Amino acid sequence: MGEFVQTRHRGPFPLQRPRELILACPPMKSNVNLSRIVRAAGCCGLRRLICCGRARILPEIARDTGPELVIEFHRTLPPVLQRLKAEGYSLIGLEQTTDSQCIYDFAFPRRCVLVIGHERLGIEEDVLRLLDAVVEIPVYGLPHAHNVATAAAISIYEYCRQYPTG
Amino acid sequence: MGEFVQTRHRGPFPLQRPRELILACPPMKSNVNLSRIVRAAGCCGLRRLICCGRARILPEIARDTGPELVIEFHRTLPPVLQRLKAEGYSLIGLEQTTDSQCIYDFAFPRRCVLVIGHERLGIEEDVLRLLDAVVEIPVYGLPHAHNVATAAAISIYEYCRQYPTG
Repeated sequence: MGEFVQTRHRGPFPLQRPRELILACPPMKSNVNLSRIVRAAGCCGLRRLICCGRARILPEIARDTGPELVIEFHRTLPPVLQRLKAEGYSLIGLEQTTDSQCIYDFAFPRRCVLVIGHERLGIEEDVLRLLDAVVEIPVYGLPHAHNVATAAAISIYEYCRQYPTG
Repeated sequence: MGEFVQTRHRGPFPLQRPRELILACPPMKSNVNLSRIVRAAGCCGLRRLICCGRARILPEIARDTGPELVIEFHRTLPPVLQRLKAEGYSLIGLEQTTDSQCIYDFAFPRRCVLVIGHERLGIEEDVLRLLDAVVEIPVYGLPHAHNVATAAAISIYEYCRQYPTG
């Protein structure tokens, strides 16, 4: 047993190279969920987050993400996803589908876009058909589905675990 | 590229044995955060969650966790943590401390209690001194600290990743 003394809010862990993970959110039902995703993205050192529709980031939830994280607003996801694909990004969805891979076994490409689904509708057909792979977080009990912001944070964590220094 | 067809809300992944991870929350500032933690615990198949103080679980956030997840209410954490320790549970804190281990490298004991901190105060001294180990989730950028419910969900995910079938 150690002598544990709090060291809250010490500086961030250094990255040896900028994160190449981009987060892409469709038009969401809840700005609270979106803002929680923004906070998690900031904490994980992401540089770019794409959101859609009438999204509004709530500062009391997202907190003070720095200028490192650029947040872009688009009308819909497919055009920007297609451009990113042409730039060499793999498009990875987070969804339960017929061909989802368990996130435990999934090796994230370093340069990729993690695509999130709408709270109720999930990832819709026009986006699903663009994806290179889909990952799924195992669920073991009721209520049988993680909150979307929780699932997004877990997936970003898993990416960071695989690329601990960028 | 596959043909991805949504299969939302399919049944849970089977566990080969009941989860031996217990979650312990101190008196929290926000019932929203507590309720989000309850939802994540239910999704991960946990059987026991300890909360303190005037905690109230909000069903619209926690959703319908099943009877498998027993939620206990205590006045404070130390007495129940001491009892669990006597029953053979390792007490693992989630906090930034002088002796925290990076969660990427931490092998969770199967039989353990994950102890969460208060939103603003973190894990307080009287609980810190009972802990066997403390884990920390690397943070790479602003706002430099995950929301407590996000951090709890990530840690439970990491435990499940290490014990994918219970």
